[in-house]
Parts: sequence; structure tokens; C-alpha cells
Amino acid sequence: MTSATRTNGSAAARTVDLEAMGRAAQMASRKLALLATAQKDRALLAIAQELEAQAEKIVAQNALDIQDGRAQGLSEALLDRLLLTPERIQALADSVRQVATLPDPVGEEMESRVLPNGLRVSKRRIPIGVIGVIYEARPNVTVDIAILCLKTGNASILRGGKETLRSNLALVDVIRSALARTGLPQEAVQYIGNPDRALVRQFLRMDAYVDMLIPRGGAALHRLCREESTIPVITGGIGICHLFVDESADLERSLDVIENAKVQRPSVCNALDTLLVHRAIAQEFLPKVAARLAPHGVEFRATPEALAILQAHDHGAKVVEAGPEDFDTEWMALVLGVKLVDGLEEAVEHIQEHSQDHSDGILTRDLQNARRFVDAVNSSAVFVNASTRFNDGGQFGLGAEVAISTQKLHARGPMGLRELTTYKWVVMGDMHVRP
Amino acid sequence: MTSATRTNGSAAARTVDLEAMGRAAQMASRKLALLATAQKDRALLAIAQELEAQAEKIVAQNALDIQDGRAQGLSEALLDRLLLTPERIQALADSVRQVATLPDPVGEEMESRVLPNGLRVSKRRIPIGVIGVIYEARPNVTVDIAILCLKTGNASILRGGKETLRSNLALVDVIRSALARTGLPQEAVQYIGNPDRALVRQFLRMDAYVDMLIPRGGAALHRLCREESTIPVITGGIGICHLFVDESADLERSLDVIENAKVQRPSVCNALDTLLVHRAIAQEFLPKVAARLAPHGVEFRATPEALAILQAHDHGAKVVEAGPEDFDTEWMALVLGVKLVDGLEEAVEHIQEHSQDHSDGILTRDLQNARRFVDAVNSSAVFVNASTRFNDGGQFGLGAEVAISTQKLHARGPMGLRELTTYKWVVMGDMHVRP
Repeated sequence: MTSATRTNGSAAARTVDLEAMGRAAQMASRKLALLATAQKDRALLAIAQELEAQAEKIVAQNALDIQDGRAQGLSEALLDRLLLTPERIQALADSVRQVATLPDPVGEEMESRVLPNGLRVSKRRIPIGVIGVIYEARPNVTVDIAILCLKTGNASILRGGKETLRSNLALVDVIRSALARTGLPQEAVQYIGNPDRALVRQFLRMDAYVDMLIPRGGAALHRLCREESTIPVITGGIGICHLFVDESADLERSLDVIENAKVQRPSVCNALDTLLVHRAIAQEFLPKVAARLAPHGVEFRATPEALAILQAHDHGAKVVEAGPEDFDTEWMALVLGVKLVDGLEEAVEHIQEHSQDHSDGILTRDLQNARRFVDAVNSSAVFVNASTRFNDGGQFGLGAEVAISTQKLHARGPMGLRELTTYKWVVMGDMHVRP
Repeated sequence: MTSATRTNGSAAARTVDLEAMGRAAQMASRKLALLATAQKDRALLAIAQELEAQAEKIVAQNALDIQDGRAQGLSEALLDRLLLTPERIQALADSVRQVATLPDPVGEEMESRVLPNGLRVSKRRIPIGVIGVIYEARPNVTVDIAILCLKTGNASILRGGKETLRSNLALVDVIRSALARTGLPQEAVQYIGNPDRALVRQFLRMDAYVDMLIPRGGAALHRLCREESTIPVITGGIGICHLFVDESADLERSLDVIENAKVQRPSVCNALDTLLVHRAIAQEFLPKVAARLAPHGVEFRATPEALAILQAHDHGAKVVEAGPEDFDTEWMALVLGVKLVDGLEEAVEHIQEHSQDHSDGILTRDLQNARRFVDAVNSSAVFVNASTRFNDGGQFGLGAEVAISTQKLHARGPMGLRELTTYKWVVMGDMHVRP
């Protein structure tokens, strides 16, 4: 998008476009809501097939994105995230087929009762309607989200990163042609293909047509959505994750959990950020932690007393004193904050102040402490003797995941198919009137 | 609030106050979340007792509000809504005792499973945290909301209408003294006692402390909250409610339902606004509707063909042609829109275009039409052969109601105690690591 185009009087045309997209999505969502599960699954299978059939074309469009990205100096690590290969497209098609096998939550009766006056009242699961998704980087998100929305009878309006615009458009084309082939409305999946950033702000105010907004990206995107959106937003995806090692913990086995939580995939939101260690075991335990994590290249940011213990031993890990903001930082890297605490209460207080309500846990052999920790910490997932890395839709057995929510309304933690639905009350009477 | 005070440099002081209130509410909410049901119920009973003991003082403060309101020319109808009498306070105390008898949803295990790797995963209901409520008029809302929040372990920050400021402050004083007496934190219930409107906008951006915002008032308040709030908002309370009278309906009994839905309490959100009548029965049915509603003083706003039928008969009702906005108007009065439709599909389309997703229903004897209507209309409550007036927490057997939501996220229709909770995932392992 050149600034010439931006000042070209096309703003009005674009306004009309987003409105038209919203209205078309709303109309499509009404049709989707009436489909039987078998019809939706048939469309998903057609999409999987079409992805395989059009793999070459998708890869070619992706190659242009990658070429541009390289020219713009994107890192090789990022370029690898953006890359689509025939194998990756095959994996996408397989995952679409897997979603087709999942149970459809739409239509479930959630509660049902007959009132004393004979009225039958029940809650029935229905699609949410139109779901807006703003995401960054990986083009496979385009397919993941569109498919989970279709499975649950929702229309989607997608807006991906500009780095993969051609890839995303190619993927959406494939989805739409499969929709048309199976008799579903093409407007069920739409993509905002204009990279003008002003469109995002306009999109955020389309509450007349869009029922839920899911931002998938960094803190700035979440903040923008929370501040500007008139559409209800699912915020999340950002975690400052804690493990508290209680005095009673099995220290040897705790090392396994800490290592897994910190190093298995340090760039994700459920990776460990801060280790809280009971003062009574710090002398014995901290050097072991350092020795275990040093070979992975983990750097420690420690409070003065933890620093003193770590510096008194030889373990090969880099150790520096924690700065004032280190316990409010999501590292996304091989860095670990370390702090000593007097016990459970202080650990809980630290977590309540610094957690982003994502994933926090305790390592302990003490039943009462486990119970008190679980009662007091209200993060979206609370762990006892397990790695924070388990906060994930696949790991929790949800079959699929659209996002991880850390807010309080609607859904918390991994959002699967059910979390893409809402409900209505169905009331069956025999000409009942209210007394 | 005089403009002198507003420009008095006190803005900064007020900023600090709201922040402090938010932080205190958050701290209190963490204590409330750990309370056993019995402790919360004990506090509720103390509040009921204190309301009775302090009734005279509350009535005296309310009398000053009423006196001011009369001086400012408020209508007698509105003044009656604002009025607190010893009997009304007794009714409030009784309702508090009733809430104490309701089951506490906090702590419920909602789902529980053991994963193949042995991890135990469950969802546990927890309080939402801090709930902000902005409301208008009736002072009993102050007590209703504070009590439902306390019962579910939530702190609340309340902001009522300026017309009942003294009454609200007196009620909050009573609640807080009962909280103190039973060992609960007083900051669990706080009231924004400064009528400066700028505070509302500031309050709407307190997402750091407030987890959910419930506006209870007119469309303008809901719009303001949706546009300005960075806190997740429950919108609702506004309904353009429809009944579709199908060709097959039992016409005599339909009159009972229509009469109930329109005239029983025309000023509320679940009262009937628009009657859609199948063309095949309009000649026979419309004059009967007019004859039934005329004695109640109902005025009809009819499309031209409905108008022609209504004008051709003698029934005593006032009938005028519907204007372009009449089918998008929530009447809150003894007015009824009337339109003829060709059948179910057209009725559904009209409802999808004009409903506010509150309460819509069909009157029919045809099973297939009932089913198709219920499938296609996704309002928060959908009725078959029953009055829209039933969309209410008490009527649905929820025991209590904090608001009626018409949005898609979190909760729809009447919100009871459960809808004031969220959940966390609790994961119990044996030093599990993610492979």
C-alpha cells in the first residue's frame, strides 16, 4: 500500500467494503447455523482435498512472500515460521481432516428443566455468529481458524500479517472454492486483503456484524484491541509463568519439570518465566537448577540473595542480578527469573502481583500446600507437580485450539470448539402467560 | 457537583481515588475468593439484619433524595421508582435472606478427566474477581447487585444514578458495617459517591482492576460502555421483542399470550414490541387482537395492509400507519407494531433484521414450524407458545438475576449466580513433563 493509494479517495470505497464484508459474513453465518454436522464435515474434507490439490500454487505464492521477506531483511528464524512447503501443507490438510472427526458441540442441550408451571426451559448451544481474527506471522493460522469456525457454524473474517498476504489469500481462495463446491456460502470465510493499517481500527468497531474478536499476536495487538474494539475481545496469549518450589518438593524430579517448562520451547506463552524457591531449600536446590539449565544456555536473573547462592557455586550458567522489571517480563527466551520466598503465602502474593493469569504451578509433596496454592491462585491454568507447558488445547484433550484466553469472561485457558459457541434459552410452553 | 469543584484541581485527587478503590477491590476479591459458602451466607444474613435495623436511617436519606427529585420536577412515576419505604426495605432484606439460601456455584467442578498420560485435568468454578456496575434509578439495585456479587465471592464497585445518591450511600454503609461485623473486608463493596460524569469514563478504563462491567440502564449507557470501556462489558437489557402468529396458531389462546406479553408490564425489556401475523389469518385475527388490547389503551402501528384490516373493523383501538423506524423501536409503552408476513421464512427474516436478540417467539400448532423457528432464531431466549415476559431469572428458576444479557459471549439471557463466575483449569500431575 503506497501512501498515494491511501490518499486516493479510496477510503470511502474501503469503508463500504468492510461493511459489505461484515453484512455478507452475518448472512452467511445464519446459513451456517442451520447446517447439520455432516454438511459441515463434508466441506472440511473438501477443503483438505483442495489444499492437497492446490499445494503447488500455494507454495508458489508463499515463495513470493518469502522472497519479499528476505529482501526486507526478515530473520531466517522468522522466514522459517512463514514458510509453507508441500509437507507443511500436507500437515495442514491432515489437521483439517482431524477436525472433521471431532464431535460438533452445536445443538447440545446444556441444561434442561421443567418449571413448576409446566414450561420446558433448556439451554442450547449455538454458533457465536461472526468471528473476527487478527493475527501475525504464520499462514497456517489462516486455515486453522477458518476450519474451527466452520466446524462450529461460525463465519470468520480474517486479517493476517502483511508478510504472508499472498500465502493467506491463496489459502483463503482454496477454502472458498471448496465451500462453493460443497454448497456452503463462500462468504463464510473472508479475508481483509488490504494491508492498510487504518482498516484494522475500522474493523475493531464493526460490532454490528462481528460478535467476537480474537487477536493472536503480541501484547501491543492485544492492548490495541482492548482499547479500541467495540466488539467483545478474547485477550490472552501472554503469560508470565511461575513455578513455586515448596520446601517439601522432590527436588530431583522438580529439576525435570523446571527444565521442561523453561527449555522445551522457550518462545511460547506457557514457558516458564519465574522460579520461586522456598528459602529453606535454596542453598541445596538453586545450584542444581543452574547446573541442569546451564547446558541449555539459560541465563538467570536473580534477586540478591538468590544471586549470592548461585555465584557461590560453579555450574557454568550466566547469572545476573534481576532488575526492577524482570519479574514483569515474559522472556520468550532462555532467561529465567529466580526469587526466594518464605513460603507458600509469599509465593502466592508474588504470583498474584506478577502473573498474567496464564499458567502457574507449585512443586510440592505437601497436600495442604497443594490445596492452598490451587485455591489461592486463579490463573487460567494452575498446576500441581506438572510443567506449565501443558496449558494447551491439544494437551488438555480438547482436540483443537483457537487461542489461549487469560481473561475472565466467556472462556479461560485453551479455547477449543465449545468455546467457539454460545447458547440460547429455548422455552416451550402451552400458551403460558406470566402471572 | 458545581463547575467550581470540577475545575478545582481535584481531578488528580479523584484519579488517585478510583485507582485506590480498584486496587482495594482487587485485594478484597482475593480474600472473598477463599471464603467458604457458610462465611459468605453469614455475612448476607448480617446484612439483612442490618437493613432492618437501619431502615429508619435509610428512609430518611431516601426522603432527601425524593425531596430533591420533586424539586427538580421528576415525574411522580419516577419518584415512585426511587422511593424506599419500610416495607420496601423489608422486602429487600427478605430477598437478601433468600439469596443466602441459594446454592453457591463457586468451587463446582465443571469437567474432570484423566488424560492418557495420567494428568488429572478439571475445570473449577471461581469468582470473576471485581465487578463494576453502572446503573440508573432504583436504589434497590445497589443491594441486589452487591449481594449477588458477595454470594459468588466477587467484589463490586457500584455507581448508581445521582437521583438516589444519598439512598445508595446509606445502603452501602449498611452493607459495609455488616461486612465488618462478620469479618469480611469492607472494600468488597464500594460505591463511587461522586456524581462527576468524568469519573464514569475513567472508570470504564480500569481494566487493570475490574474484570467485568455490567451497565444497567438505557441504550445510551450500553453504547457508551461498549464504545469506551476497556473492561469486558455485558450488554443487554434492550429488547425489541417479537411474536409471530403462525397460520396454525390457536387464535383464541394466542390472544392471551399477546395480551400478557404486551400489557402486563409494558415498560420492561421483555414486553412485546412487534406482532407478526401470517397473512392467511390476518383478516380474522387482527380485529380480535385490537378488540382484546383496546381496553388496555394499546395503540397500533401497522403496515398499510394491516392498517386496512384494522381500520375496517370497530374495536376502539387507536391505529396509525407504521413509520420507517417503528419496527426498530423498543416501545416501553402501550404501543404495538403490526406487520403481515407470508409465513415462517419472512417472519424469521424480519426478526433477524430487527430483533435485539432479547426475546422472540412463535405461536403455532405446527411442530415443524416450531422446530424451524427455534433453529433459525438465535435470540437470547426463544419462545414457543409462551409469553416473552418469561425471559427473567426468577421465572427461569435461577433464583436471582443480575442482568439480562443479549450479547454472545459469556452469558445470554438472564444472568444468575453462575453467570457471575468463571473457571480455572486445575491440573494435578506427578512431575509430568510435556514430551
